[in-house]
Amino acid sequence: MTTAKRDTYTPETLLSVAVQVFNERGYDGTSMEHLSKAAGISKSSIYHHVSGKEELLRRAVSRALDGLFGILEEEHARAGRAVDRLEHVVRRMVEVLISELPYVTLLLRVRGNTETERWALERRRDFDHQVAELLKAAAADGDVRGDVEVRLATRLVFGMINSIVEWYRPDTRGASGPEVADAVVRLAFSGLRQN
Amino acid sequence: MTTAKRDTYTPETLLSVAVQVFNERGYDGTSMEHLSKAAGISKSSIYHHVSGKEELLRRAVSRALDGLFGILEEEHARAGRAVDRLEHVVRRMVEVLISELPYVTLLLRVRGNTETERWALERRRDFDHQVAELLKAAAADGDVRGDVEVRLATRLVFGMINSIVEWYRPDTRGASGPEVADAVVRLAFSGLRQN
Repeated sequence: MTTAKRDTYTPETLLSVAVQVFNERGYDGTSMEHLSKAAGISKSSIYHHVSGKEELLRRAVSRALDGLFGILEEEHARAGRAVDRLEHVVRRMVEVLISELPYVTLLLRVRGNTETERWALERRRDFDHQVAELLKAAAADGDVRGDVEVRLATRLVFGMINSIVEWYRPDTRGASGPEVADAVVRLAFSGLRQN
Repeated sequence: MTTAKRDTYTPETLLSVAVQVFNERGYDGTSMEHLSKAAGISKSSIYHHVSGKEELLRRAVSRALDGLFGILEEEHARAGRAVDRLEHVVRRMVEVLISELPYVTLLLRVRGNTETERWALERRRDFDHQVAELLKAAAADGDVRGDVEVRLATRLVFGMINSIVEWYRPDTRGASGPEVADAVVRLAFSGLRQN
């Protein structure tokens, strides 16, 4: 590594360009050539920052995973009744998804063709499992309905949350991040029907 | 068209092979060559049945769309309180999604690069709009919560339903179609929390 750089990229800004290209073309369909063109710097300049596209993928999905796992360390996710901890986690998942939209989008599209992708899938499964355990604890407390199997309920709630990457755009005049998080919490916990 | 066929395909079975290939490779990434190999018949035999891959796409997404629009014609979707009609539509959407899984999966992945794809997206939007109208009517009746905006609620409920294509497999020992439909209706209308 030299200190004289011929480009103005930092690992951070290069990552943000790479994630955009990965999301547009798919990770498999992206070459170093595509990344070089999108960033407007030579391939050797990119190699100055990272070892290759798999390192960029690993950094990008790590950012999403760190955001998600960070939620489980928050006080409201660790103390209190399981159903309230679950509600906190669901709300924060939506907030992290929206604040880290391109990174979470990439994470959700990972297929498992490379070691990094398989690692990311494994970490996602681990996260899903921890949320499912919280749901199971809430059901054991009698705070969550017992007539929907835990695994199925977890999948459906994750389905609702993850679908946000398909339509949420920060520049639209639609709902803001906290409005979407509120809506998800209301629907997931109390449903559409007016009691 | 001649009556003597050198293959045992009907338009129906050819369609089912094509949908599988489209879902695996993506519609854009599928050539007539791929279809010919997957079906085990020559390209000219395929042209005996259809004008090309776009016709196969149109037939496939039509099958999904006919299933979905058919729901809106059912008696329970047309008579009764809006909230009950909505509940019927949501349950039947899950059932149609599961019974026509590869066709609905393809429909949900349509991108809009060809005329047929744009037509399919337009029809999907029309369906979504009709369900949103039902939700609006239920809210006007006071049967559905007023604190989540209709468009947002529709997107989230569709997100939950559509996510089923990502994990539901008919051969797994997991939940059956009616069990998944029940779970979706319970979560979407009453939520997780035990009242």
